[in-house]
Formats: sequence, structure tokens, C-alpha cells
Amino acid sequence: LAAVKLLVTGASGFIGRHVLAELALQNNFATVANARATSAHFAQHIAFDPADLLEPGAPAALIARVRPTHLLHLAWEARPGRFWTTPDNLRWAAATLELFSSFAAHGGERAIFAGSVAEYDWTGAGVLYEAMQPSPATLYGIAKDSVRRLVCGPVAASVTVAWGRVFWLYGDHEPSGRLVSDVISALVSGATVETSEGYQERDFIHVEDVAKAFVTALTSSHLGPFNIASGVATPVRRIVGLLADEAGRPDLVHFGARASPAEDPPRLVGDVTILRDRIGFSPTIGLQEGLSRTFRAALHARAAT
Amino acid sequence: LAAVKLLVTGASGFIGRHVLAELALQNNFATVANARATSAHFAQHIAFDPADLLEPGAPAALIARVRPTHLLHLAWEARPGRFWTTPDNLRWAAATLELFSSFAAHGGERAIFAGSVAEYDWTGAGVLYEAMQPSPATLYGIAKDSVRRLVCGPVAASVTVAWGRVFWLYGDHEPSGRLVSDVISALVSGATVETSEGYQERDFIHVEDVAKAFVTALTSSHLGPFNIASGVATPVRRIVGLLADEAGRPDLVHFGARASPAEDPPRLVGDVTILRDRIGFSPTIGLQEGLSRTFRAALHARAAT
Repeated sequence: LAAVKLLVTGASGFIGRHVLAELALQNNFATVANARATSAHFAQHIAFDPADLLEPGAPAALIARVRPTHLLHLAWEARPGRFWTTPDNLRWAAATLELFSSFAAHGGERAIFAGSVAEYDWTGAGVLYEAMQPSPATLYGIAKDSVRRLVCGPVAASVTVAWGRVFWLYGDHEPSGRLVSDVISALVSGATVETSEGYQERDFIHVEDVAKAFVTALTSSHLGPFNIASGVATPVRRIVGLLADEAGRPDLVHFGARASPAEDPPRLVGDVTILRDRIGFSPTIGLQEGLSRTFRAALHARAAT
Repeated sequence: LAAVKLLVTGASGFIGRHVLAELALQNNFATVANARATSAHFAQHIAFDPADLLEPGAPAALIARVRPTHLLHLAWEARPGRFWTTPDNLRWAAATLELFSSFAAHGGERAIFAGSVAEYDWTGAGVLYEAMQPSPATLYGIAKDSVRRLVCGPVAASVTVAWGRVFWLYGDHEPSGRLVSDVISALVSGATVETSEGYQERDFIHVEDVAKAFVTALTSSHLGPFNIASGVATPVRRIVGLLADEAGRPDLVHFGARASPAEDPPRLVGDVTILRDRIGFSPTIGLQEGLSRTFRAALHARAAT
């Protein structure tokens, strides 16, 4: 594996930092981690190449410096409240296409991209299969879908591409403004948690399993999209309930205090046949264990500050 | 109109040179023409800014230099035999998104893009309306469709975007490797023209009308896609027959000498309601006149060499 060199973008992000931890454990790849930050604390044996991929020309320059054989492209705007609609989705699409074109032109062999459940049509059936016709409803989803159609097309016979559609992930270092992180924040500070009735079902997966799925995909032969999901539909109220039990504060939760969003799909769950059979990965962290670990890590972080 | 500044990309291309001629006639815009070539002969009063938009960072740098209020983006890979499948379609998509993002960020107001009939689903009905769900079958069509979905989305309220889908254009300076240019080349050199039976119907429009449609769109208020088409379905054999008549050499044409491509759609014609009513333009160059002019221009160019 001496000639194998992996570039990971978005390395300081929610998924990226768990990917680097997994890569450090496996030690199969000579890895270069890219992130915007000019300083970052990464695991031993992982080189760091800081660059803001939204700077004009930066993606091509990064590829020219690193000359990777493998690419795991996680970088994208992901800030809650912002990523669905920001015009930066166009800049990320442009940067991603430039990155991939340069990767292919420099002899890259295998590329894995972070896609999203937002590429799917949410108005139809509750089980989402990779073969379904995508129909994204948001600018973020359109941008991801557009890039996927281009990089998974018959572009460069020498590059194989797989595209991991991430479902509802949670876990340590989840940014605030998201369900699990915000519920935990409220619970550990003794604040009231006001939620909808929460009967809508979603497919939750722990971020460490997401990271392992991406790393496993690097050495699989699968082409095209694959769901990164648990395959299990869980009512959102069960997530909140488990966290409240973990905190010993079910009294803080007020189900129904907020109205459910209009047209909120009742059930969205990923089919995991391709993940299991073609990528060769199945999630191992169950919901109860995953939420418990996430809660305890948050408590620990809070105590340390 | 003192504050109006127009940037035209692809200015030395088949459509671009006719656009510049039209702009020189109208003299409504302070125009900067971009093309890859380091030297180009453009009309008076049109400035030239040479740049290869596929160079990393070049689109953003061009916008920063020109600071246009209006953008007419024609540049793309268009060489016959190459443009349908080249991986450069991804680079053009990236460059186009970078160009548009920079344009919007620098206060751009109105942007017109060159789309294509290749964005449509060719397997269904013969009349193609803008409201139809696109279903491109080629990498070129996918790239155009992907960019359109992103630049015509709700990105920047301050920029209005229209997207002209060009049908089968022909005219002076048409590159070789295309129907009209190749048939004329054969006829003027006395070579045999071997074609299919040519019963398939397409929507042909003269390049000067295409150019005028784009220029008119710059000052229209239309948002989103619009067909640049004649609205008339013409059998391909009629094109060949008219050119042979013009040359006085119908004997050179062998209809049926080539097989028709498998799954060649029998009829593809653009609805022109939006072009007429929303853009405010209708083509004025009829097929017989347009082909006659194109043939005589080719004869003239041949005599001059």
C-alpha cells in the first residue's frame, strides 16, 4: 500500500474528525487532512494541509500539492440554519467539481463523496432506496444532487466514484443548532425542552458509524450512491425521551409545545442493502448506546470547562 | 445606461461573434468580451479581456477585473465530436458556478446563460416546453442542467437569471463537424453527400437569430429557462435538399447511404411562446434565406482563400 495516498477534506468537521480517528486506528493510508483552519489537532501520522477550498483555484492547488490516489471529500457548508439555503452551496459545488477534475487529471483512482438524504424525494414512500429518482427540495440538496450526477457519470474510466448519502447523524462534537446537541444542552443545564409531538420517524446513525462507512467505502468497489443509514426508523420523540431518561429529567420535556412543521414527512428511513452488501459495512452503535455515550461525553466536556 | 457594463464570455465562439456584432449595432452596453485567445478581432467599442476560464481561479479574477452589471455567459466546450462526453464538462460546470457566484457577490444584476436542447427528455413528445421536467441523456446535457438548477434557484435576490436553451443552430462560421457546415463543404468541393434518409425533424434556427435572442434577453425580465428556437420542425433531408439546390448539385446527395442512428427521436421542436411573449423576440431569418446566406458566405470565403 506504499503508493496509496489519501486526501480527506473537511477534516475538522463533525464527520471529518471521526474519520481521522478511524484512519489513525486502521493505519492503512498515508493520509493528508485538509481543513480551512490554519491550526488543527489531528492524530499522529496524519499530515495537515490547510486551505480554504472556496478560495478561487484552491482545490486544484491542493490536489497538485498532495497528488492523492484516494479522495474522501467531506468539506461543505454544514452550519445548521445556514446550509440549506446559502448561496455558498454553488461555491461548494464549483469547488467540488474543480477538486474532482484535478484529482482525475492527476491520476486519482478512488473518490468518495459526502452526499445527503436531502437528495431524495421526501414526499413519497418512507423507505429511501439509492435507485429512486432524486428530487431535492432545497438548494443544498440540489447542489449535492447536481455534483453527484456529474462525478458519478462516465467521466474518467480511471477513477471509481462512490457517493455516501448521510442520514440523520448525531454524536460527540455535534454542532449546536441540531436536535440531539440542543436537547442535551438544555437537559444538562436544567432548561425546559420544548418539542413537537415528535411522532415523525427518522433514520438516526451515530457519527462514528458514519465515519467507518466512509472509510470502508474507500476500499470497496461500489460505484455510485449508497445510503449511510441505520435502516431503522425512530420517532423523534423517542430520541428526546431516551436523552431525558439518561439525564434523569423527563420532567423537563414538553412534547407538543411546538407545532410540527407543515408537510413534515411522517417517515424517512434508508434502505441499507447496498451499505451492507456492496460497501461491506453495518452500523454497530445502537441508538440507546449512542445517545448514552453522546450524553455522557457532553457532561464530561461540561465538567472540564 | 452609464452604469451598465456587460461581460460576454465565449466571445470568439460560433454564437459569441454574432452576439458581438449585434451588440456593436445596438451600442446599448459598455461591453467587455472574454475569450481564451490572446488576440481576437472584435468590433469597435468592445473591450477585450482574454482569459481561459478553465484555469483555476480565472472566473473569479475575470469578474473582479470587469465588475459587470450584466453577464452573458456563452463559453463552454462546443467542439463537435467532443462536447457531448468530455470530462471538461465538469470543469465548465465548475467554472460557470464560480463565475456566477463571483458575479452575484460583486453586485451583478442580470445574467443570461447558454443552455441547450440537450437538457430535455428526447424520448417523449416532440414539442419541447420549458416547464417540462428535464432529463438529459449526455454528460453535456447533465452539466448544463445541473448548472441551470443552481443558478436559476433562489440564490441571490439581487440577481435575475434567464437560461436560453439553444436548439439546432447553423450559419456563418459554423465549425466543421456539424450538419450544415459539412454538407456545404462537400457540395462546394463537388464531393458526394452521404446522409441518412433524414426524415427526422429538428428545430433549426439561424445563429444571428440566436444571438439576437440572447441580447434581447439581457433587457427582458424573464426568469428561468427559455427556448431559443424557431418553433418549426424541419426534416433534416429538407436542409440537405435546400443546400443541394442552392449549389445546383442535387446529384451529389445520396439519401439513405447512411443508417439512421438507433433511437433517433423522430421530431424535436421548441415551443416559442416564452421566447415571443416573455423575452420579446421572434426569429426573422427563414430557413431558405438562412441556408442560402450561409451557403453563399461559404462560397465567398472559399473564393477569398
